[in-house]
Amino acid sequence: MTFSVTILGSNSALPTTKRYPTAQVLNVSERFFLIDCGEGTQLQLRSNKIRFSKINNIFISHLHGDHVFGLIGLISTFGLLGRTKELHIYAHHDLEKILRPQIDYFCNDLKFTTVFHHLNTKEPEQIYADKVVTVTSFPLKHRVPTCGFFFREKQKAPNIRKEAISKYNLGIADIVKIKNGEPHFDENEIQIAPSELTIPPPSPRSYAFCSDTGYNPAMVPVIKNVDLLYHEATFADEHKDLAKKTTHSTARQAASIAKEANAKKLILGHFSSRYDDLSGLLEEAREVFPNSYLVNDGDVWDIAAGR
Amino acid sequence: MTFSVTILGSNSALPTTKRYPTAQVLNVSERFFLIDCGEGTQLQLRSNKIRFSKINNIFISHLHGDHVFGLIGLISTFGLLGRTKELHIYAHHDLEKILRPQIDYFCNDLKFTTVFHHLNTKEPEQIYADKVVTVTSFPLKHRVPTCGFFFREKQKAPNIRKEAISKYNLGIADIVKIKNGEPHFDENEIQIAPSELTIPPPSPRSYAFCSDTGYNPAMVPVIKNVDLLYHEATFADEHKDLAKKTTHSTARQAASIAKEANAKKLILGHFSSRYDDLSGLLEEAREVFPNSYLVNDGDVWDIAAGR
Repeated sequence: MTFSVTILGSNSALPTTKRYPTAQVLNVSERFFLIDCGEGTQLQLRSNKIRFSKINNIFISHLHGDHVFGLIGLISTFGLLGRTKELHIYAHHDLEKILRPQIDYFCNDLKFTTVFHHLNTKEPEQIYADKVVTVTSFPLKHRVPTCGFFFREKQKAPNIRKEAISKYNLGIADIVKIKNGEPHFDENEIQIAPSELTIPPPSPRSYAFCSDTGYNPAMVPVIKNVDLLYHEATFADEHKDLAKKTTHSTARQAASIAKEANAKKLILGHFSSRYDDLSGLLEEAREVFPNSYLVNDGDVWDIAAGR
Repeated sequence: MTFSVTILGSNSALPTTKRYPTAQVLNVSERFFLIDCGEGTQLQLRSNKIRFSKINNIFISHLHGDHVFGLIGLISTFGLLGRTKELHIYAHHDLEKILRPQIDYFCNDLKFTTVFHHLNTKEPEQIYADKVVTVTSFPLKHRVPTCGFFFREKQKAPNIRKEAISKYNLGIADIVKIKNGEPHFDENEIQIAPSELTIPPPSPRSYAFCSDTGYNPAMVPVIKNVDLLYHEATFADEHKDLAKKTTHSTARQAASIAKEANAKKLILGHFSSRYDDLSGLLEEAREVFPNSYLVNDGDVWDIAAGR
C-alpha cells in the first residue's frame, strides 16, 4: 500500500533549468492527488511516468501563477486523451472565474466535467474523503488567500489472527463484527480479549503540504504528528527580512514548524533562484530539526507502512 | 550578422518527454522574434540560453493551446524580472480577450505594457518592419484562423570599394549618395560604372514559418524563393486522410510546398506523438524535396550571410 509523494517542481516563481515551478503528486494506494500545477506539470508527469488517467483530484494552494499556470495545458491534454471521468479541482473560488473562459475557448469538445470546489481559506476544513484517505485544507499566511493540505490515511480495521479463526470457530459474520470493534464471546459467554483475536492495523500515514507561507505556527495543531511535512523554504537566514516582506519562510522557520508539530520528517522546497548552493538552507534547517531534507524534481518520498 | 532559428518545441498537441509543444526563436542580427509559445517555452528559453530581455515581439500563428499556453507564464516572468520595455504580440484578436483577464489577475504589478496587434487572417499583410527586417503574415489553412509568418532581411545598401575612395577622391557626401544608388561622375562629368565604386550587398535572407496548416499552395507566392522554410509535417503518407480531416499536412505535402516555392531548405516539425520513428516522414519528404530535414528541440538552423 503505497504512500509516497513525487516532486514534479520545486522552485519558487522563476523556473530554472533544474527546477520546475511547484507541483507534486501524492500516491495513496494508487489514488493520485495532484498538488499545485505550475507551468510544465504535464511534461513532468510524463517524465515521471505518472499516468494522466490516474489523476482525478487537483489541490491548488493559491492563485499565484507558479502554482497554477500548468492547469489549462493539463486539462486540454486530458481532453485530447479522451478523458470521460469527472475532474475535481479544489482551489480559491477565483480560479473557476479565471479558468472557465479558457476551458470554454480552448477545450470546447471535452467529454468530461471539471468540478470546482471552493476552498475555505479562513479555517481548517475537511474537503475530501474516500475509503482510504481524508484531505483537510487549512489557512496559510501569504500575500493572497492560501491553503495548505493535510492528507491522512483512514484508520484501518484490525486484522483477524489466522489462528483465532479455527481456535474460536469464527464465521464471516463474527469476523465482520470483530473487525468493527464489537466484543466477541466464547461458548461460555466469556469475552475474548481483542488481542487474542486481532492484530492492530498499521498506523495511518499522513502528509502535509505547506506552500507558500510565512512562518505560521497557527497551522501546527492541524498537522500535529505528521509523518512527512513539505514546507516551503524560499530563503536562507540572511534574507529573513525579505522572507517576512514577501510572506515566505526561511529554512529555519520551516524547521521550527516541523519541530513544533512533532513531524517525523521535513522536506524543503520552493527555493529562491538566487541560491546556486542550497546546502546553507539545509544546515540552518537541521540546526532546528535534524531530520530535514532538500527536495529535487523527480524525487519520490515514500512513507513505509508502519505498525 | 546572425540569421538563425532556434527550435524550442517541435511536437504537435500532446507534449512528450523529448519534444515540447510549438515555439521557436528567430534571431535576426540579435533581434529575437518569438514564434508561437506553447507550454514550457520560458523553460526552453532558459535551457537554450536566450535572454528574456531580448524578446520584444511575439508572433502567434493561431489560438490552439499547444501554440499559446506558455504566454501567461512568460509574461509573468518578464514582470518578475523587472521588464519595462513594451511587449508586442501579433495574434488573432481573440487572444487579447483571453489573455488580458489573466494578465490583470496574475500580473497586476507589471511595469511594462503588452500591446496586442490583431492579425489579418484573410490575406497577406506586412505586420512588422524595423531597420533590418520585415515580417509578413499570411493565411494558412486550419480548423481555426491561422497565419504563417515570412521574415525577410531588408535589402542592404551596397558597400563602397576601398580602392575607389582614393581613386575617385570620394567624400562622405559622395559615399552616402553612391550607397543610395545615385550616379557618380568623375571630373570630366563622365559617369563611373557602379561596379567600379561598389560591391553588391549580400542577398537578403528569409525564413517562413508555416504551422499549423493543411496542404495550402495559396501561400506559395508569399514565400517564393525563401531560404529556410519550416513547415508542419504532423503525419506520414499512411495517415493522409487523417491529415485532411484535421487540416494538418503530411511530410510529403510539406515538401511539395517547398518545391513549388523554390525554397532552398525545408525543415519539418509538429510531429504527431504516434510516430516513435520519424525516418519514414523524412524519406517521404525527400522523395519530393531532397533538401529536407527533421527538427529537434534545441536545434539552431543558421542561414549564413551570402552574396
